[in-house]
Amino acid sequence: MTARPALWITLEGGDGSGKTTQAELLESWLRDSGRTVLRTREPGGSEVGQLIRDIVLHHRGDIAPRAEALLYAADRAHHVETVVLPALERGEIVLQDRYLDSSVAYQGAGRVLDGAQVRDLSLWATNGALPDITVLLDLDPVTARQRLDSADKPFDRLEAEKQDFHVRVREAYLALADAEPGRFVVLDAAASPDEIAEAIRTRIAPLL
Amino acid sequence: MTARPALWITLEGGDGSGKTTQAELLESWLRDSGRTVLRTREPGGSEVGQLIRDIVLHHRGDIAPRAEALLYAADRAHHVETVVLPALERGEIVLQDRYLDSSVAYQGAGRVLDGAQVRDLSLWATNGALPDITVLLDLDPVTARQRLDSADKPFDRLEAEKQDFHVRVREAYLALADAEPGRFVVLDAAASPDEIAEAIRTRIAPLL
Repeated sequence: MTARPALWITLEGGDGSGKTTQAELLESWLRDSGRTVLRTREPGGSEVGQLIRDIVLHHRGDIAPRAEALLYAADRAHHVETVVLPALERGEIVLQDRYLDSSVAYQGAGRVLDGAQVRDLSLWATNGALPDITVLLDLDPVTARQRLDSADKPFDRLEAEKQDFHVRVREAYLALADAEPGRFVVLDAAASPDEIAEAIRTRIAPLL
Repeated sequence: MTARPALWITLEGGDGSGKTTQAELLESWLRDSGRTVLRTREPGGSEVGQLIRDIVLHHRGDIAPRAEALLYAADRAHHVETVVLPALERGEIVLQDRYLDSSVAYQGAGRVLDGAQVRDLSLWATNGALPDITVLLDLDPVTARQRLDSADKPFDRLEAEKQDFHVRVREAYLALADAEPGRFVVLDAAASPDEIAEAIRTRIAPLL
């Protein structure tokens, strides 16, 4: 048994905001300090979730908006119950790419559904489970687009959505952070990776 | 344009209660009277739904109860929006094997979730859409088991559940029918197929 506390950290932000880079830097730092880290993601952080992820990201043809929200919530329900909560019970640090804030920002603010309903759905899915810390990498949409274009990788269905959609997603994220300042750490994703990593470590260190 | 009204009929009941036989008899009768009939089912009544059906019925290993309820609701949301409502708007008769009453009876009453929550979830998924008529083929579970055993076909995941589960499903179905007598037609599935078919036609004829 470790005396050091379990910790659930989620990373949020638009595509191209640097979540993967920061997750890698944070994971290395946590492992170097002797902690056990579970890197995971939504959608697709479980075996069932991989099947759901294939549907929501790669299905040819439209998916009804409520069906899409329910699929993300199903992925979340299974992931939290079978992957996240067991790891936290073992005293590990869960470092997760995207959680319910993504659903609220993308499906709620960005589409035809009400953000509050999408949030309620996610909270029902997980019986109210919320992370200890959510790092929001905030990047203006024009810079985000430039980063993705230069990476020269194929866009999936969500990434192909229009620019104004990304503007609404960013605004929704910032509103979520304003509403829960205790859980969110908002960082300027245009800063250097090392600067951002240092800011994340500064915030997390007291909790370890 | 037809002057004859659209009609949405769902068939409910445990496995082995004769839903498929009755759907075929009713479809023939409706077609013979000149109506256009859409036969469909849940889960799996749409292309996206087929993918979801594969997960909920054939995934190896447990699916978290809330995830399962959310997957059925996702299938339902997409099916109603892209298949059922368009057919009704065209003035057709939709004849559907299983709908939200199955979710309430199987996931709600039969498992760890509250039936009212499962119902609320389904109603959110479909924006409150309910069928005009729901035919419940009520069969005591012992007879249902005997029918399935004699059919000598492989059981899927749900069919393999225990006998006491089927008792709870039946009780949940009967409670749903009691709560909505205007929508439900409850028939004794132990009667002959012709007798049951005649009872269904008698109930539906005034609505055509």
